[in-house]
Amino acid sequence: MSEIDVPESHPRYQSLLTRHRIEAGVEKGITSKQGLIAEGRGEAFDYLLGERTIESADEAARAAAALLLLADRPVLSVNGNVAALVPGETVELAAAVDADVEVNLFNRTDERMTAIVGHLREHGAEEAGVEIKGLTADARIPGLEHERSKVDADGIGAADVVLVPLEDGDRAEALAEMGKSEIVIDLNPLSRSARAAAVPIVDNILRAVPNITQHAEALRGASREELEAIVADFDPEAALSAAEDAIRSGDLE
Amino acid sequence: MSEIDVPESHPRYQSLLTRHRIEAGVEKGITSKQGLIAEGRGEAFDYLLGERTIESADEAARAAAALLLLADRPVLSVNGNVAALVPGETVELAAAVDADVEVNLFNRTDERMTAIVGHLREHGAEEAGVEIKGLTADARIPGLEHERSKVDADGIGAADVVLVPLEDGDRAEALAEMGKSEIVIDLNPLSRSARAAAVPIVDNILRAVPNITQHAEALRGASREELEAIVADFDPEAALSAAEDAIRSGDLE
Repeated sequence: MSEIDVPESHPRYQSLLTRHRIEAGVEKGITSKQGLIAEGRGEAFDYLLGERTIESADEAARAAAALLLLADRPVLSVNGNVAALVPGETVELAAAVDADVEVNLFNRTDERMTAIVGHLREHGAEEAGVEIKGLTADARIPGLEHERSKVDADGIGAADVVLVPLEDGDRAEALAEMGKSEIVIDLNPLSRSARAAAVPIVDNILRAVPNITQHAEALRGASREELEAIVADFDPEAALSAAEDAIRSGDLE
Repeated sequence: MSEIDVPESHPRYQSLLTRHRIEAGVEKGITSKQGLIAEGRGEAFDYLLGERTIESADEAARAAAALLLLADRPVLSVNGNVAALVPGETVELAAAVDADVEVNLFNRTDERMTAIVGHLREHGAEEAGVEIKGLTADARIPGLEHERSKVDADGIGAADVVLVPLEDGDRAEALAEMGKSEIVIDLNPLSRSARAAAVPIVDNILRAVPNITQHAEALRGASREELEAIVADFDPEAALSAAEDAIRSGDLE
């Protein structure tokens, strides 16, 4: 990848790439002030986790892939940091599991919505046949204040399975109450978002999204029964405990 | 305090105040993008610490107060986040221990230097008789690249004790190698800055700076021998271990 001037073998490659993408996101009007602070929180948790995908997070990514493949109407929700950090990876996942992408922002403005939709298109959404939703905003999530409740009726409004990476707690809980099966990517295993999820993935989004795609590709030939067994065998409580344990006991140095 | 529209008894008062000051810092050109990310990292560590001053951090703040009172030429180093988060508190500490304040930025530009000096003046530096240095930049710290090495010859250049809150590791190590006694405030007990310090304080800067001031006021009548005993009894390794233990074993919920 020639996106940054550092070889992939560099020990800080991933964190340098993350920093580069987040700063480019600020320049493009995609990443907000809140998004920069959230990025820092994620960095600290990832540091404590050892900046690696732990085994329970890999199992969660596999369960997420199975859930997305089983879904009738899967949607991948994208906010400013997701768009800045993994635009191409999100489009690839959507193509792999035949999901729509829907842009949803905590601080929703027309400028940011347009910038993010444009950014996803630049990263191959149309070529991959992936539909980008979020601009219609003709449905509401019950129990949230007006701007935060907006979704597309035929997007998240009608979805049965939703991937909500880096989501805030209120919204993750409200979506779960609507009966959606939620897949959450969050580096804090005790966040309300992670605890609201059917499948919580405690991992850096830069590692988690391509990992779900890989699992989805490996599971493409699996039967419905096999996929259902993978989902049924996944234990979200155990995954969160394992992640907490890794954060508590990992080698910090 | 009427700075934000929330009572001090509110459980999230401190984090709301922090967020408010950091955002105001962005608007005034004081806080950088890097500063916002660093703020997020601090939030995550503070969350794991329980958002409280642990006993070992209080002992470190007392040792810091003693070290500052013993110093011939104490200097408080201020970067963008320090200026945004604790401008008045830093001026009060400088007045309490008769220290100068010196502005030092990782990304040094004339605009940011001027904005920060102005911000400290708005927070009572002149009324308190506190001198703000950093604009002369007529000395260098050996071993650092040009912009990062700039200090005032009669400020940090000549200081025997330096408080460097939220400092980056390279600079903290270079200052220690110059033989300065360093007091570092850092929420990550395993950061290079914390490990380079004679007195590392693992605490939120909003709690730590006023706490050092309180200890300095309580120690104002103490003899040189008493102050030296407080410094000698302080064990930086033990303080860092206690902080790491608190982060690992604290109740995260």
